[in-house]
Amino acid sequence: MRDVAVIGVGNTKFGELWEYSLRDLFVEAALKALDDAGVDMIDSIYVGTMSSGMFVDQEHIGALVADYVGKKHVPALRVESACASGGFAFRQGLIEVAGGFSDIVLVGGVEKMTDTEDATFALSSAADQDNESYFGATFPALYAMIARAHMHKYGTTRDQLAAVSVKNHNNGSLNPDAQFGRKITIEAVKKSVMVAEPLTILDCSPVTDGAACAVICPLEMAGKFKKKPIKVIGTGVATDTIALHSREDITTLKAVQLSADRAYQMAGKKPGDIDLAEVHDCFTIAEIVVTEELGFAEKGKGGLLVEEGKTALDGEIPINTSGGLKSKGHPVGATGIAQVAEIVRQLRGEAGERQIDNPKVGLTQNMGGSGASSVTHIFEVV
Amino acid sequence: MRDVAVIGVGNTKFGELWEYSLRDLFVEAALKALDDAGVDMIDSIYVGTMSSGMFVDQEHIGALVADYVGKKHVPALRVESACASGGFAFRQGLIEVAGGFSDIVLVGGVEKMTDTEDATFALSSAADQDNESYFGATFPALYAMIARAHMHKYGTTRDQLAAVSVKNHNNGSLNPDAQFGRKITIEAVKKSVMVAEPLTILDCSPVTDGAACAVICPLEMAGKFKKKPIKVIGTGVATDTIALHSREDITTLKAVQLSADRAYQMAGKKPGDIDLAEVHDCFTIAEIVVTEELGFAEKGKGGLLVEEGKTALDGEIPINTSGGLKSKGHPVGATGIAQVAEIVRQLRGEAGERQIDNPKVGLTQNMGGSGASSVTHIFEVV
Repeated sequence: MRDVAVIGVGNTKFGELWEYSLRDLFVEAALKALDDAGVDMIDSIYVGTMSSGMFVDQEHIGALVADYVGKKHVPALRVESACASGGFAFRQGLIEVAGGFSDIVLVGGVEKMTDTEDATFALSSAADQDNESYFGATFPALYAMIARAHMHKYGTTRDQLAAVSVKNHNNGSLNPDAQFGRKITIEAVKKSVMVAEPLTILDCSPVTDGAACAVICPLEMAGKFKKKPIKVIGTGVATDTIALHSREDITTLKAVQLSADRAYQMAGKKPGDIDLAEVHDCFTIAEIVVTEELGFAEKGKGGLLVEEGKTALDGEIPINTSGGLKSKGHPVGATGIAQVAEIVRQLRGEAGERQIDNPKVGLTQNMGGSGASSVTHIFEVV
Repeated sequence: MRDVAVIGVGNTKFGELWEYSLRDLFVEAALKALDDAGVDMIDSIYVGTMSSGMFVDQEHIGALVADYVGKKHVPALRVESACASGGFAFRQGLIEVAGGFSDIVLVGGVEKMTDTEDATFALSSAADQDNESYFGATFPALYAMIARAHMHKYGTTRDQLAAVSVKNHNNGSLNPDAQFGRKITIEAVKKSVMVAEPLTILDCSPVTDGAACAVICPLEMAGKFKKKPIKVIGTGVATDTIALHSREDITTLKAVQLSADRAYQMAGKKPGDIDLAEVHDCFTIAEIVVTEELGFAEKGKGGLLVEEGKTALDGEIPINTSGGLKSKGHPVGATGIAQVAEIVRQLRGEAGERQIDNPKVGLTQNMGGSGASSVTHIFEVV
C-alpha cells in the first residue's frame, strides 16, 4: 500500500445559506480545495452526504457533483454513514489511492439542511427507524439519555456539559467560517431553552448548510503541489448496534473506541502522541464520552478534562479548535471533511487566530447516529 | 494489486414482499451468500441502497445491516449512485480487497420500494432535481425521449423495443426468484397501458422489494471455500451530466461506453470475448442503447440485435438471462449485485433451466439515472 497525503483543503462558510443550493455548496468547497492544492485534473471523486433525499429530494450526488465541478466522465460516488458520511468519504479516497487505483482524488462532504421543514425528522433516519425514531426517540432524546446515564454512573456534572459548549464557542469565535461566532457562558448554556433534559439548545449542534473538500494523492507525488503535504498515517472504522437500547452500556461508545484503536495501531501512535483533535461534538455529552474513548481521559473523567481546561486552545490536548460541530456548525455530510480541513490547517500553521503552538500530529473522529458508526484518522507533518 | 474472486452469492425472491422490512431483505440475502461461500467471519461490508431515506425513512444503512447480520463492530458502509448503487458497492469491495485492506468482504444491495406512496417521486431524485424532476420529467418520460430520438435517428422500431421485454420475460419465466414469471408477446407489450409515449407499462421495469449479496476475497484464498471461485477481471466506472438535456446526443450513453472501455481494458478483453451479459434494462430502450455502447452491436443496430434473436438465451450473446430488471424486478439498490449473482451462477453452471452452454466470460453493466453513472464488471471462470 502507498502512503497518502492531503495536498489541499477548502470549505464554504457554514450557516443558514439561503442563497446556496446543495450543488453550489459543493462546487465552492471543491474549487477552493483544488485551488489550495494547485490541482486541475482529478482521477475520482467521493462525496459524503447523509440524507440529500430527505433534505432536498436529490440523490445520485456523485454524478451530480462531478458534473457541476466540471468533471463529467470522472468516476464519482456518494457514500453515506449518517453524520459520519464525510469521514467515510475521506477513507474511501484513501483506500483508492493507497491501493493504487487512483492518484489524485477529490474527497468531499456536503449537506443542505435548511430547505426542509423538518430537519429533526430527516436526521432521525440515522437512528433505528423501526425501534427508535418511529416512537419519537430523536437524537436530542437519545443523547440526553447518554448524558443522564453518564452523570449517574460517573458523576459528570451539568457544568461540565456546559463547559464543552463554552470552549467550542470560544474557539468558533476565532473561526471566520463558523456558523456561530459569539462566545457564551456556562450560565447562558444552562439557562437556554430546554430540548431534552439535561440538554438545552446550547448543548446541541445546529442545523447547518455547508460543504468541505480535500484533495489527496500518493505521498511520493505530494511534493510537487502548492502546499506542504500532510501525511495520513492512520485510518480506522467500526460499527455498533444501530439502536442505543441494544448496547450493554450506553455510557460507552464502542465503535469510537474500536475505530480509534484501529487508527492508533496503523499509525503506531498512542493517545499521548496526539497534539490536537477534532471530534464529533454533536451534543456536549458526545465530546465528553468521545474524549474518553479516544484515550485522552480515563473512562468517566471526560467531564473533568474539559472543566480543567485541558482541551482548551492552550491546553494539553486542544479539542475542536475549529469550534467543533457546536459552534462551527454541523452540515452532517460535510462535518468529517471539515474536521480534516481544520487538522490540515493547524498542522500547516495556517489556522490564524486559533492556531496552536507547532502541532505535529492531529486526529479526526467523526460518528453517525448515537455512535453506531465511527471513523478515525490520524495525520502527521511530513 | 491482488486478484479478487467471488466465492458466494445469494438473493431474496424479488417482488412485492409485504412481509419483509428493508433489514429482513438484506439479512436473508446476506446469510444465503455467506452460506453459499461457506464463510462466517467477514472483514467489512458494503451495501448499495438508492434512497432508503425517501422509501422507508431510514439512512445509516451500513451500520444497520452490520448489526442485523450479527456483525456489529465490523466496518460497514452504504454507497449510493442511484440505480447503480449495487454495482458501486461491488466495486468498493473489490478496491478494498485488491488493495490489501481486507480479505473477506460482504457486498450487497437492498431496496424496500413498496412501503412508500410514491415510488416514482423517490426514483426521480436520481435525475436533476432542480432542472428535470421539479418540472415533472420522471424517468419514464426521460427514457421515452431517448427512445423517440433513437427511433428518429436510427430507425429503431416499436416492435424492437417490445422484443426486449418479450425476451426478458421469457428468461424470467425460467427464474424462480423473478417478480414476473409469465411469458408475454409483442402484441401484449404494445397494447398495455401507455406510460410515456412510446413506452407502455410493459416497456418499464417494475417497483420491487429485494436484496442480493456476494462474498469476495483474494483469488489466492478463494480455493478453500465451498464453491468454484469466479475471478473478477475488469472494473470500470464513469459519469455523465446528471441532466439528459445537457448531453450532446441523447441517443448515446457516454458513461456506459466509458465504463465498459475501462473494464475491457483492465480485463484485456473485447466485446467479442464476452459470452453473456446482464445489463441495465430499466426500460426497453435502455437495453438497446446499452448493448450498442458495450460494443455488442454497431451504434444504431441494438434494436436489430434483439429482434434477430442474437441476445436470446440461445443467441450469440445472451443478454439478461436472469430476466433482467424488466422481468426479474428492479429493487434499485440491489440490482447491480443481482446482476453479479446471475453471472456467477451462469459461470458456475448453476443457472438451472436458463443455463447457457458452458460460458467462460460474463459481464455486468449497471447504471444510475438516465445514464449519469455507469459501472461495468467482467468475470471469468478460473
